[in-house]
Amino acid sequence: MRLALQWAAKGLYTTSPNPHIGCVIVKDGIVIGAGVTQPAGQDHAEIQALKDAAQHGHDVRGATAYVTLEPCSHYGRTPPCCDALVRAGLGRVVAAMEDPNPLVAGQGMARLAAAGIGVEVMSGPLSDEAYELNIGFFSRMRRQLPWVRLKTAASLDGMTALHDGSSQWITGEAARADGHAWRARACAILTGIGTVKADDPQLNVRAVETPRQPRRIVVDSRLEIDPNAKVLAGGGTLVVSAVRDHDKEARLRDLGAEVITLANAHGKVDLPELMRELGRRQINELHVEAGTKLNGSLVRERCVDELLVYLAPTLLGDAQGMFALPALASLEHKRTLKFHEVRSVGDDLRILARFTDQATN
Amino acid sequence: MRLALQWAAKGLYTTSPNPHIGCVIVKDGIVIGAGVTQPAGQDHAEIQALKDAAQHGHDVRGATAYVTLEPCSHYGRTPPCCDALVRAGLGRVVAAMEDPNPLVAGQGMARLAAAGIGVEVMSGPLSDEAYELNIGFFSRMRRQLPWVRLKTAASLDGMTALHDGSSQWITGEAARADGHAWRARACAILTGIGTVKADDPQLNVRAVETPRQPRRIVVDSRLEIDPNAKVLAGGGTLVVSAVRDHDKEARLRDLGAEVITLANAHGKVDLPELMRELGRRQINELHVEAGTKLNGSLVRERCVDELLVYLAPTLLGDAQGMFALPALASLEHKRTLKFHEVRSVGDDLRILARFTDQATN
Repeated sequence: MRLALQWAAKGLYTTSPNPHIGCVIVKDGIVIGAGVTQPAGQDHAEIQALKDAAQHGHDVRGATAYVTLEPCSHYGRTPPCCDALVRAGLGRVVAAMEDPNPLVAGQGMARLAAAGIGVEVMSGPLSDEAYELNIGFFSRMRRQLPWVRLKTAASLDGMTALHDGSSQWITGEAARADGHAWRARACAILTGIGTVKADDPQLNVRAVETPRQPRRIVVDSRLEIDPNAKVLAGGGTLVVSAVRDHDKEARLRDLGAEVITLANAHGKVDLPELMRELGRRQINELHVEAGTKLNGSLVRERCVDELLVYLAPTLLGDAQGMFALPALASLEHKRTLKFHEVRSVGDDLRILARFTDQATN
Repeated sequence: MRLALQWAAKGLYTTSPNPHIGCVIVKDGIVIGAGVTQPAGQDHAEIQALKDAAQHGHDVRGATAYVTLEPCSHYGRTPPCCDALVRAGLGRVVAAMEDPNPLVAGQGMARLAAAGIGVEVMSGPLSDEAYELNIGFFSRMRRQLPWVRLKTAASLDGMTALHDGSSQWITGEAARADGHAWRARACAILTGIGTVKADDPQLNVRAVETPRQPRRIVVDSRLEIDPNAKVLAGGGTLVVSAVRDHDKEARLRDLGAEVITLANAHGKVDLPELMRELGRRQINELHVEAGTKLNGSLVRERCVDELLVYLAPTLLGDAQGMFALPALASLEHKRTLKFHEVRSVGDDLRILARFTDQATN
């Protein structure tokens, strides 16, 4: 199963909106086939592994398949993997976890068992690892919402930029490359008009190799984006506004952007509604890299599931903080999270913390 | 040597101003004696280990002594340990590191070698551990300054208190107990008048057992301290002021406090001069627990060697930061540190970070 998880991780940058699944086929203690989910519409991991075994002349009858997720039992863009496993004469199927997709949810394993195949669904650390690999897919299946990861880079005293906006570079090169790896696994990257104006970011994946660029999303309530902004280059960017401006929208569409309007009662972009819209658009993981203001709004409106904080071993003193959040009346009202993982990245620290106080989790 | 370091750690709360040293005597692969430095004026670790061996009827002739610091060669409050080791007929002495005390500094090992004893001074991780155990003693020997450790507890967004001053409790119970263990190993604990007014702390060690309470120090530039402040209870507190007020001083002295005046040109306490004064008073480790303002002044005046930051998995938003430091003109002027150690303490993170940009280190 550990090997199957390694295969699954190979699909981290490519399988969206499908989950990243690995499959390893073992017979008499020897690995005879392995595979990973291919980009949407193509083979799932199980089929790849069966083909791999066949290509090398191995007989899979009676073998055990280790799959990082319960094999599918329904017709999607591809036929059910269960049927292929039954047809191939597998002896046993071990899944790291059950499929949260309501169209599968245990039916895959049941179907295999009904065909006389031995089945097992794991629990424990390997199961947790399988969950983490596809946390966005599970979020969308269970809540119809993307898993929202907000990335920020701060000094040890919690500052993300000087008052003049300068923030390049607070963290080191290793942390920046690591940040690009998180961008690469996301289905989309979201920023705000403030960051577009201040930094003119490309918002794409550069520091790591990827065959797929995540979708770019700009929250721009008053539709102020400059048509020359780098984030629009190449087209495909989603601009989310709270006002209509037909000329401006037409101009952005000519540049290949998509413009949608999602206003709340305050004339700002309705962020929770945007998250639901992104869920409908099959965005599994949403990566946020924005400034203090949009970060604060997203946290305040409970749209964020986890924080990815790079802490640099520096002090900036009086500067811009991580989140523009109102002062609390009492400490009881503080937002609570749980440290999920902490590690060194170059000279910096990388902290992954998950909110524990929102109903959506 | 690992065992000797464990013995040394037993003296962490008691040996001040002497270093905490452990000694283990081994013969034919068997530990025949062990000891730790006793409170000042009493036995050093080597003598304790020799006595321990004798008490159990062991013959130490030809044995190897592992000592976490080079044995002393001078008469202090006790006679030189070197002489005792020579007299006992030890065959070999291994020290984890050389004594930084200019009165010893290699002379101990030389004296042993001259007496025909095999000697070795280690390097590597065990040597580093021996250094960390006595970082304050080494600081005082090398720089005539205490090692200054500033402790702060903050939310993940770097906030230490709400605007109304409330800060109880940002971190959990485990972090608070851990903080008391750091207090216990310090020779003195320093705070500011702001914290005394806001929290009325006792500033003593409670959450861990210790036979010795560190000295309490209050920086109180305008001598505003309330004679009923808990920090004065029991006497012995050092109040450092920048103004003279004979009546107030007399009253504080009646309460058992010591009052000294160390003013700088701005009518505030001269913090660098205070550090030199504490060095002269044989303070090895100084533990600082103060508010945003004094923390900021100590950092700005480069009096701090390391930060001990407890980060809670919470967000406080608009609140008081860690350090009142002026805004920077450019990111180049940021203060730089190095993460020395990061670990989980209960639900919180404990980060130890050392300044790398001050000449005094």
